[in-house]
Amino acid sequence: MTASTAIDLNADLGEGFGRWRLTDDEQLLSVVTSANVACGFHAGDAATMRRVCAQAAERGVTIGAQVSYRDLAGFGRRAMEVPPAELAAEVAYQIGALEVFARAAGSRVAYVKPHGALYNRVVHDEVQARAVIDGVRLADASLPVLGLPGSRLLALAAEAGLPAVTEAFADRAYTDEGTLVPRGQDGAVVTDPDAVVERSVSLARSGSVVAHSGARIQVRARSLCLHGDTPGAVGLARRVRERLVAAGVRLEAFA
Amino acid sequence: MTASTAIDLNADLGEGFGRWRLTDDEQLLSVVTSANVACGFHAGDAATMRRVCAQAAERGVTIGAQVSYRDLAGFGRRAMEVPPAELAAEVAYQIGALEVFARAAGSRVAYVKPHGALYNRVVHDEVQARAVIDGVRLADASLPVLGLPGSRLLALAAEAGLPAVTEAFADRAYTDEGTLVPRGQDGAVVTDPDAVVERSVSLARSGSVVAHSGARIQVRARSLCLHGDTPGAVGLARRVRERLVAAGVRLEAFA
Amino acid sequence: MTASTAIDLNADLGEGFGRWRLTDDEQLLSVVTSANVACGFHAGDAATMRRVCAQAAERGVTIGAQVSYRDLAGFGRRAMEVPPAELAAEVAYQIGALEVFARAAGSRVAYVKPHGALYNRVVHDEVQARAVIDGVRLADASLPVLGLPGSRLLALAAEAGLPAVTEAFADRAYTDEGTLVPRGQDGAVVTDPDAVVERSVSLARSGSVVAHSGARIQVRARSLCLHGDTPGAVGLARRVRERLVAAGVRLEAFA
Amino acid sequence: MTASTAIDLNADLGEGFGRWRLTDDEQLLSVVTSANVACGFHAGDAATMRRVCAQAAERGVTIGAQVSYRDLAGFGRRAMEVPPAELAAEVAYQIGALEVFARAAGSRVAYVKPHGALYNRVVHDEVQARAVIDGVRLADASLPVLGLPGSRLLALAAEAGLPAVTEAFADRAYTDEGTLVPRGQDGAVVTDPDAVVERSVSLARSGSVVAHSGARIQVRARSLCLHGDTPGAVGLARRVRERLVAAGVRLEAFA
Repeated sequence: MTASTAIDLNADLGEGFGRWRLTDDEQLLSVVTSANVACGFHAGDAATMRRVCAQAAERGVTIGAQVSYRDLAGFGRRAMEVPPAELAAEVAYQIGALEVFARAAGSRVAYVKPHGALYNRVVHDEVQARAVIDGVRLADASLPVLGLPGSRLLALAAEAGLPAVTEAFADRAYTDEGTLVPRGQDGAVVTDPDAVVERSVSLARSGSVVAHSGARIQVRARSLCLHGDTPGAVGLARRVRERLVAAGVRLEAFA
Repeated sequence: MTASTAIDLNADLGEGFGRWRLTDDEQLLSVVTSANVACGFHAGDAATMRRVCAQAAERGVTIGAQVSYRDLAGFGRRAMEVPPAELAAEVAYQIGALEVFARAAGSRVAYVKPHGALYNRVVHDEVQARAVIDGVRLADASLPVLGLPGSRLLALAAEAGLPAVTEAFADRAYTDEGTLVPRGQDGAVVTDPDAVVERSVSLARSGSVVAHSGARIQVRARSLCLHGDTPGAVGLARRVRERLVAAGVRLEAFA
Repeated sequence: MTASTAIDLNADLGEGFGRWRLTDDEQLLSVVTSANVACGFHAGDAATMRRVCAQAAERGVTIGAQVSYRDLAGFGRRAMEVPPAELAAEVAYQIGALEVFARAAGSRVAYVKPHGALYNRVVHDEVQARAVIDGVRLADASLPVLGLPGSRLLALAAEAGLPAVTEAFADRAYTDEGTLVPRGQDGAVVTDPDAVVERSVSLARSGSVVAHSGARIQVRARSLCLHGDTPGAVGLARRVRERLVAAGVRLEAFA
Repeated sequence: MTASTAIDLNADLGEGFGRWRLTDDEQLLSVVTSANVACGFHAGDAATMRRVCAQAAERGVTIGAQVSYRDLAGFGRRAMEVPPAELAAEVAYQIGALEVFARAAGSRVAYVKPHGALYNRVVHDEVQARAVIDGVRLADASLPVLGLPGSRLLALAAEAGLPAVTEAFADRAYTDEGTLVPRGQDGAVVTDPDAVVERSVSLARSGSVVAHSGARIQVRARSLCLHGDTPGAVGLARRVRERLVAAGVRLEAFA
């Protein structure tokens, strides 16, 4: 580790729909270096997408397409058996729709990150992971893909010649193998803010974190995923950012 | 009029959704020179959009974005009071989504045409016409707009520097002023296939047609709109094409 | 006016959708006597409808169907030209869906109130007002309809033999004719909480309120509509309730 | 087996949406004794539901609620991980919405049948099968449930005191264990119309059918499921009906 270590901070933005708001987009844009913008399938209407892209571009925040199953009612959190040709087309559709607003703001869609149930599914599911990669390539064969280290998604992205970018979660417990302790298990989520901040610094500076077992493990990640949809989340995200800067970590988008 | 007169033939395509089909896309693509592809708001799912774009590109048919109010349940046929900023963003969203599939097929979105209730609304409604133009410019400030001669939409397109392309309907009756006789009035729709064919040739060769009153009027149109969503419609469209060719009219996309 | 004057307090509830929340349903249920429950067309998913009905029944709050245009993206606030047969069927559909949850909670749908753009439309629009009434009668030919005094909706309800129930708004300015000053005009909304409370008492006790012109006018209403979707709204609603009780007004659902 | 054997014929109806049609509802209503009416989640808008219920009631055809995952884009054919409380509420919502139109037509919702991916899922999935039964009971604790013999759905229906009604498919191959040969396997679908007719009679008269292996197996079913969404399907359904009548089988709804 040296003072030149760089880390990206990403968070989900624009996750309202019509009358409903969820994420505090303005605040988050002052914290993150990469914005995962919802594209209308689990959240995100056209006017919100336009606004968030304009604000992100203004602040120099990189814009990514947060692609999802088509499921507004379930916020994209319900796994779906979508035939791969449909899924690929749906992924491309979302990227294209967001691209208009990114370009109009003088920026561009610079990466893709699956959302919710799709994110979890493509860790292991070969067929859907391949469909997502196919969809990304339909839109732009040079787009980086952001996901979990060791996931099928990133393996297939690399095979396809797309930059595969890894992310880590400072507020999630890890197994000794470097995978996430499933939600629902005891201690799966780290709720102590101080611990989250400390783990963020450790992940960024040394590429390691204390696993659930107590052992220190390697978790190589180019990006840290922050959350902004719960009370207090933005404040915590801001603290993480400040401590990283104080620790000499360079905050820098990967794309 | 000379033998070098060129006319474009446009029709709505890809107007199914998921399990449902409406337009006979393959047949229509052998007739038209421009395909108004549904973009998911009144019809058109991502997989259908991809397929239609691929087929259109293969046949050298120009691809246009058929943009609509967000209304799958009403097929975009119910006028809506959409605030202009929302409408502009929704138009841009649809264009961007289609662009992905046009590009993936080696083509591009080459024009925009509003659908259904939105098409009718922007003939007279200044606010919504301006919103559509704003949406087109968000996506691409050089895109031609296809619409009714004399419409606010085309006037505002021209003001904004976008190519304003006029179309005519061989199967609709015209007033002496060159506007369409409203549906619902007697004789508003020309149902005799021979008359439709004859009027198509007249519109293409001489830029004129016999109005409802019996008078011959000028209707300058760069494109003829054909319909493909009723039984027999494709057969009639094919006859129109054949007679135009036989009459020495050059069939050529405007974009 | 006597101490036995009764007034109903109604508010919109269950106006979230999936992951999104809007109204503070639990708090509102401790204030109102009638709950206008969203039925899934502008807001309100099935699980939320079930929950709100159960909570309302538990607290003895009357359940009403808040019916809307089919427009989740616009929260039912965009007027739509829905053909009357479609609109009637959509109204009935929403009532039926809510009825299941009301019955399961040991209650029933006791009235119908249109939402948003539909509410405003049926004040003057004969065709849509009639369609709403047709829809209500499809569901239950004895259901009361809640709306604006002088509206076509209530006139047609009365003609059809449905109880027509009037409501007033303590936070809206009135013209001398007893209609609402349109939003967007200066002073259309009463923002001073003390004024809202005072006007509520006046409307309930004397059936009158000071109009925008300064004149005191009659506004006969069996129900007061409270709002619960803005910060501070629930607190104000609670104050209104307390002051009405202190003023000797009996709070009583109309249905 | 005696001449008094009774069988029900069921088919899916009302599976259009807005502008789109799929099933030939009028023709099917002259063939079946029970109509599985789509309720708006995979297909079926309110106006269509109203029309189909009116036509069914007029012809004395029993009305059932064909409940589905919320998935218009996928026609309910994509399995979804819906949390059980949500699924139960969604099932109840659909039944309630249909009930309005059944009642308005002088009939009522007389049974429930899951559609598509949900139908297949509840054969084995305990959690979702229980959620469907919970949803049915929310709506009406006496409603029969129609499904596959041996399914978890019917087992749980019976446990809950709901009539569990079995159905068979004359156009699907069976294993020796009486389960359906999965689609995709060779010979899974019986395409020869004569064979379908013959198997229908055998299923109705003797409660048996020749399995894929050639062995004759018992398949006890109170209803036969006919299909109406493909060309020629209605003609075949009509032949099945005629042959059953000619064979002395009594056609009679189960509910």
